[in-house]
Amino acid sequence: MKIATKEKFSAILADLKSRQIDVALISDFENSRNKNIRYLCGHPSDAHLLLFADGSMTLIPWDQVMAKLMAEVDQVLDILNFDRSYKAALVSALKQKLGESFTLEVLPDERHFLVMQLHESFPKAKIVCRPDGVSDALINVRMVKTKAEIDILREGAKVTNQIINLIKPFVDSHRGLKEVDLAIYLETEMKKRGAEGPSFETLTANCTRSGMIHQVPSSSDAQLDLPGLALIDYGLWWKGYATDVTTPLIFGKLSPDQQKILDVNRKAYDIAIEMIKPGVAAHEIAEASIGYIESQGLIMPYSLGHGIGLEVHDPPRLAKKPTDPEVLKYWKPVILVPGMVFTVEPGISHPELGGCRIENDVVVTETGVEILTDSKPLFFA
Amino acid sequence: MKIATKEKFSAILADLKSRQIDVALISDFENSRNKNIRYLCGHPSDAHLLLFADGSMTLIPWDQVMAKLMAEVDQVLDILNFDRSYKAALVSALKQKLGESFTLEVLPDERHFLVMQLHESFPKAKIVCRPDGVSDALINVRMVKTKAEIDILREGAKVTNQIINLIKPFVDSHRGLKEVDLAIYLETEMKKRGAEGPSFETLTANCTRSGMIHQVPSSSDAQLDLPGLALIDYGLWWKGYATDVTTPLIFGKLSPDQQKILDVNRKAYDIAIEMIKPGVAAHEIAEASIGYIESQGLIMPYSLGHGIGLEVHDPPRLAKKPTDPEVLKYWKPVILVPGMVFTVEPGISHPELGGCRIENDVVVTETGVEILTDSKPLFFA
Repeated sequence: MKIATKEKFSAILADLKSRQIDVALISDFENSRNKNIRYLCGHPSDAHLLLFADGSMTLIPWDQVMAKLMAEVDQVLDILNFDRSYKAALVSALKQKLGESFTLEVLPDERHFLVMQLHESFPKAKIVCRPDGVSDALINVRMVKTKAEIDILREGAKVTNQIINLIKPFVDSHRGLKEVDLAIYLETEMKKRGAEGPSFETLTANCTRSGMIHQVPSSSDAQLDLPGLALIDYGLWWKGYATDVTTPLIFGKLSPDQQKILDVNRKAYDIAIEMIKPGVAAHEIAEASIGYIESQGLIMPYSLGHGIGLEVHDPPRLAKKPTDPEVLKYWKPVILVPGMVFTVEPGISHPELGGCRIENDVVVTETGVEILTDSKPLFFA
Repeated sequence: MKIATKEKFSAILADLKSRQIDVALISDFENSRNKNIRYLCGHPSDAHLLLFADGSMTLIPWDQVMAKLMAEVDQVLDILNFDRSYKAALVSALKQKLGESFTLEVLPDERHFLVMQLHESFPKAKIVCRPDGVSDALINVRMVKTKAEIDILREGAKVTNQIINLIKPFVDSHRGLKEVDLAIYLETEMKKRGAEGPSFETLTANCTRSGMIHQVPSSSDAQLDLPGLALIDYGLWWKGYATDVTTPLIFGKLSPDQQKILDVNRKAYDIAIEMIKPGVAAHEIAEASIGYIESQGLIMPYSLGHGIGLEVHDPPRLAKKPTDPEVLKYWKPVILVPGMVFTVEPGISHPELGGCRIENDVVVTETGVEILTDSKPLFFA
């Protein structure tokens, strides 16, 4: 039940070989999640995975039963045979396959203490860690979805569209409702339709909160349908894959300044959608869409979009070219290719007038773009 | 809005000074959460915090607005002044306060690449990382709750008890229901009562799934009220603090072997509760309770309990003494003191007969224990 196809696998192994890496370590535990284990071997979570340059894999899972059901690997080690020590199991697996001298790559976000322990256990080994190493190779394969992944994302989008269509009738029949009422309703309906749950805490913001960048709590006890610009940002897990949309909710008659926010947001969205096709650089789309908002004297304080997949924030990111020289050192433009699936979510934040954001999930096709979800501004008296 | 009291703070600073540490770095970002930032300064998430041995703190947050509202620190740096580079902001803060030569402690789960970058930026600095360092000092203060924390946990327990009381009438009036129906209902009722949401995905397991260690999905489309041992494991977030209980659901008449599982579970629970008082070692309680289950030829495949607080798995852990020599090197017994709040959750897993687990949240008092939640086996025809 691994997700990576043969071609994806070959690309990752080619990266390891080209840099003389003998083995890569990937770790996924509570408080430090890493979906690459699921991607590479099907095991869902809570494990170390050793990916050797010859393509063989050793898994050291927390849950042996789960590993038997889900993991497609060459070897599963049971920590019970190592005094419950993950590190001892790792050391044993490495020694068995590679001896004492080898080159191990760890991901940039590996736990520092574990790397120290591995250094100590293998003084003759070389441990490599770089942001443009195997983590980049994994990002590169994961950001272009397989056919099976696109099928699941398409199903998830269908269910998301059913949820979108529930908003208007629910709000109309519950005027005076609280933000949290709509959030609870949509999340319940997601689960009733077979979603694993919301892909993140549903964010419902009335006109007094929609202009904030960060809403705490995500959905409050405040009345939702006060006149002005409100919004709801929500999504669901479908067979392990995330969807993510935002629907602007317009209550009453807008002031000219608020109307401008809505119009500029819509145009920024159209600019982005029209540019999406194979061969275009993601940062150029972000710069065009965000640049338009800024040219109108308005502010968009976040990125234009992000991939969706096994994570709500999957690769690629649609952001302006970074300015941090440290980041630029490792930065490469993302060129769109068919099979990339990401959100397009231009938005405007204004502390007094409120905020507006249209967000849909799209897939890059051979010739352009297909919009999977159908979120658009909803108008209420 | 920091949570740590003066005394808690002093204990942490004393630890730093006793080990000649000049500054500790704590980081909290997506995929690598660390509640110590919230505990020490009130800022909820997504930031680096530098805690200097003189007690001053510098925060480098993702969200400046949030930091202004929530953080009680001496200095807030804005990454926009550092080309959006967290690392550059960190380097600047360290240089400004400590120059080039100092001792920095990083937590065991700090990102390895960031530590490499700091080594490079400060070749004269010493970087310390150990599992029994400041992370231990933080665990030690956090595992004894402040009065304010206990008040919140008590409120959360009250709401949890309301939820517990909803189970029996709902199941009785929805016979034939699916696992997921009960999960959706309880999670919705939590939110209606002002909880931020479930503190983890509600786990509902009918008699065919209750004996598994790891249920995927947490709550399925299967019928809940098949005859036998079912259970529901659930909890909620209340003002940032977690509750966590498990209620066994008994459907129909049990076989003698199933009845034994229920009886042994209840006795293992009583054994644990009766031992809880200041001065007792947590691992001895775990060994007595789990030992009793094992003496009856049954299996308990997890720990007896865990602290609850800002995290669902807060310190302390109530587990047997570890056997891994690597872990034993740093292991110290936890001696109960008044103000510790944790779950007591002995449970039995049997692949054919099903599983049973009673779980409540308790606080250690001056003289013994107070049981905050009121979960117990529920019986259905």
